[in-house]
Amino acid sequence: MTDRPAPAMTKRDLLSLIGKSAGATAMYMAMSSLGQAQASTFKGPIKLDGDPGGASVLVLGAGVAGLVAALELSRAGYKVQVLEYNPQVGGRSWTLRGGDTYTELGGLTQTCQFSSGNYINPGPWRIPAEHGGLIHYCKMLGVGLEPFQQNNYNAYIHSTKAFGGKPQRYKTIQADYYGHVAELLAKAVKKNALDDAVTAEDAAILLESLRGWGALDNDMRYVRGRSSASRRGWDKGPGGGLTAEPIPSDPLDMSTVLKSGMWRQIGGHLSNEHQHAIFQPAGGMDQIAKGFERAVGNLVRCNSKVTAIHQDEKGVTVHYLDTKTGQKLTAQAGYCICTIPLSILSQIEINVGPSLDAAIHAVPYLPGLKVGLEFKRRFWEQDEEIYGGITSTDLPIGQISYPSYGYGSQGPGVVLGAYANGAFAYEFTSLAPAERVQRALEWGSQIHPQYKSEFMNGIAVGWHRVPWTQGCFAIWTEETRAEHYKNLCQMDGRIMLAGEHASYIGGWQEGGITSALDAIGRLHQRVLAG
Amino acid sequence: MTDRPAPAMTKRDLLSLIGKSAGATAMYMAMSSLGQAQASTFKGPIKLDGDPGGASVLVLGAGVAGLVAALELSRAGYKVQVLEYNPQVGGRSWTLRGGDTYTELGGLTQTCQFSSGNYINPGPWRIPAEHGGLIHYCKMLGVGLEPFQQNNYNAYIHSTKAFGGKPQRYKTIQADYYGHVAELLAKAVKKNALDDAVTAEDAAILLESLRGWGALDNDMRYVRGRSSASRRGWDKGPGGGLTAEPIPSDPLDMSTVLKSGMWRQIGGHLSNEHQHAIFQPAGGMDQIAKGFERAVGNLVRCNSKVTAIHQDEKGVTVHYLDTKTGQKLTAQAGYCICTIPLSILSQIEINVGPSLDAAIHAVPYLPGLKVGLEFKRRFWEQDEEIYGGITSTDLPIGQISYPSYGYGSQGPGVVLGAYANGAFAYEFTSLAPAERVQRALEWGSQIHPQYKSEFMNGIAVGWHRVPWTQGCFAIWTEETRAEHYKNLCQMDGRIMLAGEHASYIGGWQEGGITSALDAIGRLHQRVLAG
Repeated sequence: MTDRPAPAMTKRDLLSLIGKSAGATAMYMAMSSLGQAQASTFKGPIKLDGDPGGASVLVLGAGVAGLVAALELSRAGYKVQVLEYNPQVGGRSWTLRGGDTYTELGGLTQTCQFSSGNYINPGPWRIPAEHGGLIHYCKMLGVGLEPFQQNNYNAYIHSTKAFGGKPQRYKTIQADYYGHVAELLAKAVKKNALDDAVTAEDAAILLESLRGWGALDNDMRYVRGRSSASRRGWDKGPGGGLTAEPIPSDPLDMSTVLKSGMWRQIGGHLSNEHQHAIFQPAGGMDQIAKGFERAVGNLVRCNSKVTAIHQDEKGVTVHYLDTKTGQKLTAQAGYCICTIPLSILSQIEINVGPSLDAAIHAVPYLPGLKVGLEFKRRFWEQDEEIYGGITSTDLPIGQISYPSYGYGSQGPGVVLGAYANGAFAYEFTSLAPAERVQRALEWGSQIHPQYKSEFMNGIAVGWHRVPWTQGCFAIWTEETRAEHYKNLCQMDGRIMLAGEHASYIGGWQEGGITSALDAIGRLHQRVLAG
Repeated sequence: MTDRPAPAMTKRDLLSLIGKSAGATAMYMAMSSLGQAQASTFKGPIKLDGDPGGASVLVLGAGVAGLVAALELSRAGYKVQVLEYNPQVGGRSWTLRGGDTYTELGGLTQTCQFSSGNYINPGPWRIPAEHGGLIHYCKMLGVGLEPFQQNNYNAYIHSTKAFGGKPQRYKTIQADYYGHVAELLAKAVKKNALDDAVTAEDAAILLESLRGWGALDNDMRYVRGRSSASRRGWDKGPGGGLTAEPIPSDPLDMSTVLKSGMWRQIGGHLSNEHQHAIFQPAGGMDQIAKGFERAVGNLVRCNSKVTAIHQDEKGVTVHYLDTKTGQKLTAQAGYCICTIPLSILSQIEINVGPSLDAAIHAVPYLPGLKVGLEFKRRFWEQDEEIYGGITSTDLPIGQISYPSYGYGSQGPGVVLGAYANGAFAYEFTSLAPAERVQRALEWGSQIHPQYKSEFMNGIAVGWHRVPWTQGCFAIWTEETRAEHYKNLCQMDGRIMLAGEHASYIGGWQEGGITSALDAIGRLHQRVLAG
C-alpha cells in the first residue's frame, strides 16, 4: 500500500476529478470521507489471554496486516499458516534497490539499476509519530527509525501557470501568504469590522499576535525589511566581517500570491499524519517486512496464489496455486483472516454472505504511480541547499521527493521523481516503463535543469498494474462507508477481513495494523466463546 | 557559543527586559537589530590565490572561527600558530558526556554522569541548512549530519497562566489559532470590510485558500469536525476494524487561545534559521571540533591563556600563560587573527587604535544557562509520543528539548532540561550547580510528572560563568552596530578580529565562520599588496 501522498497532491487530484463532475458540495463531502484526519487508536500491545485450545487460522496475505495477525495469533497459541502470492513478505511495504526486478501486469519487467545504498519505497514511505501500532512493531522487531523530512522550507513550489514556470522556495510563498493574511486581518480588526466577533480586549491581543506570527512591521504592514526577510529569505543573506550586512528581499504582493495558486501547497504538513515528527525505517521500508520475517517467516508460504476460499460449518478451505511449480494445492484451518486487497479479493471465488460480498465489490482502488530516478550526484543538496523534503508541482509528476538519508554524500542519489494519483496515473502507466521514466525526467527538468546531464537510470511502478494489488489503496466515500464498512469488518462465518481497506486510516500501514488487531481480538473472543 | 535559542524564548526574554524599560518602539528596534533573520553569505570554498611569501599569522582562540582561519591560512601557505585557552579545541562548540568534568568561574567543578551514548551540547546545538559555510566544513572534515527535530507538533506549549498549568500539544494550539485567524479573515472579507485592500477576484481566491489552510468547514467556520480534528487531533483517533470510526475534538474558542498567550510559541520554526531542514552532527556538536583537530590540530597550542597582545610595525607579539605549568611565554608573527570573545578580550591588554578599542568594550554578552537531565527511560517517547523537538514554557527553564538521536532506544535518555537567557539566567546560575539541576527538575516536573521518579543525574552550564567566554554571545543593538561594527571588523595595524561577534549571524557558528573567511580574505589582500 502506498500511504497517502502529500495531501495537497493526491487529495487535490482526486477531489478535482470529483469536483468537476459533482460540484462543490460533493467535493466537500468527499474531503471529509477520505478521512485525511488520521491518527491511530493503537493503545499498546494486544493481549489475547485465554487458551485458544488448538484453534487454527489461515492468514491470507503477508503484508503488514497479515504479518501482525500471524505474529500475535501464533504468540497466543494458535496454529497459524500464511499464504502469500509474492516471493517475499511485506506486501506494499516494499523497497526497490539495484538488482531487484519487478514484473507488472502485461509482463513488462524492469530491473532496478540503482547504485549500492540507494533505494525507493514504491509503496508506503513515511511513518507518522502518531502511528503507535507501527512504531510498536518496529521497536519489537528491531527496525531502526530515522526522521523523514516532510516539510522542507528550502524545497520548491512549482506551477506551470505562475512565475513563468520558475519554481519558488516554499518558505517564500508561505511567508508571503502568512504575512498578507496577518496584515489583512489586522486591517479589519483596526477598522472595527470584526467587533461582532472579537472583544476589544481580545482584539488587542490578536493584533499583537498577528504582528509576530505574520512578521509584520511596527505599523502592522507586511513589507520589505528584516522582519519579512527573516522568514522569506534575503536578497543577500547576513554574513561575517565588513561586507556582512544583509539586504532584505521584496515580498510578493497578495494578489500575486493568490493568483499563483501556490498557496494550495501550504499546509501539507499541517495534517496529523504529515506533522513532524515523521519517520522512515533506516535502510528502506522493507526493513519492516524483514523484521516480521525474522519473527514469523517460518509460518509463511510464499509464491502461493489464492484462487478460491471456501468455508463450511467445520472450517475454511483455501485453494491456491504454487506460482513456481504450477501445482494446485489446498490449505485448511478453523478460521481465516483474509488481508487480500479488495481489488484482488473481488476477483476470487469466496462463499460469504451477501452483505460481505457486496462490500468486497463496493470499494474502488486509487490508481497511482511512483518513479524513482537516480542521478550522478545530489545536485539538489549541492547546488540548491535542499536536504530532503518535497517539491510540489502542478506537472503530472505531482512532486519530487529528495532522499531523507545519506545527506551530504558524494555519490549518486535517488529522488522520488513522480508520485501521481488519479486519472493521470492511468495515462502515465499506459506508457512502457522506460517511457514513464523519460517523461518524469522531462517534466522534472523544468524544475531542476540538472536532470538531463546528471541522469543515470530510473524505475516506474504503476500501482494499478501491480499484479497482486491492482491499485494503491481502497477509496471509501461517505456513502460506501455508511453502507458497507461495518459489513466488510464483521466476521462472516469463519472468515474475517483485515487490511487498510478495513480501517479509517486508509492508505497507511497503521490502518492495516489496527485493522488486524481489531480482527484477531474479535476472532479470539469467538474462539474462547466456543 | 550557544547558537540562538528558539526565538520565541530568548528573544522574548530579552525583548521583555528591554521592553519593560524602554517601551514598544525600542523593543521593535531591538527586534530588528538582533538580526533574527539570518542566512549565510557563504558562497563556496574560499580561494586565497597568490603566494603569501612566508608570512606568518598568530590565531588566538581555537573555536570554529579560529579553526577555519588556521585551516585556510595554512592551506594558502601561511605559517600559522593557534593559541587556545582550553585543553581542547572547539570553543563553545562543545559536548558533555559521561566522565567529562567542567569547572566554572568560582571553582565549582561538575562531573557529567550521563550513560554511555548520551550527551548534551551546552553551546550550539543546531545547524540550519542555510548555514552553507558550516555544512561545507562538516563535509570537508567528514562530520556526519543528522536531522535535528526543531518543530514537533506533538511536543507541548506550557504556561503557568493557562489551562491550569496543563501543557497543550503544539498542534492543538497552532491549529486553533490558524483556524480562528482564517475564520475571522473570511468573515471580514465576506462582509466586504476589506474591499479597499482586496479585489473581488482576489477575495474569492482568498476565501478558497482560507478554507483549506484554516481547516474551515463548508460555511467557513472553524468548528468541531473531521477537518479541524485532522490538524488539532482527535478525541478518539481513527483505527481499523469495527470500532474504528474517529471522534473529532472540540476546538478551543479564539478568546481562550488569545488569552492563553500560547500563540507566542507559534512560529518559532518559521524563521530562516529554524526552518526545516535543520541538522546536528551525529554524535555531538564536538564532532566538528574533532574534525578540525584532525586537520589542523598540530597547529594548536592548548592550555595557553593570552594575557597581552602587542603590535608594532614589524609584527605582533602575544604574551600567554601555560595554564598547566604556570610558565609565562610569548609568541610572535607577522599578523594576528584574534577570535577571543569580546567579553574576554576587553579584559586583555591590547594596543589597538581608539575606534577598535571602543568597539571591543561596547558589546555586552548574553547570559545563558543550559541544564542537561538524564532519566532512566525515554518517557517522553514511550508515554507521550514525543520524538525530539522542543516543549516551550513560561517557567524559568524556558524549554525542554528532547533528544534528536537514539529514537526508540530503551535505555536512559537525556533532555535539555533548561535553556534560560536574560536576567533569570543570572539568578539561576547564582545557585550551586546541584541546586540548578534540582530547580530544573522541579520546574520540569510540572510538565512531565515522570521527572521525579525517573531522574538519574544532571549537569548545568551557566555561560556567564564559563571562564573562557563569560557569556553566550555578543548582543548588538542598532546603535552599537551603527557606531562600532565596522570599526570592530576593520584591520587595525596587523590585528584583525573574527568570530560570531564580528558578524550579522550572532550566536551561530556560521557567524564565526563567515567572519573568519572575510577576515582572512582581507588579510591575504593586505599581505599580497605587501
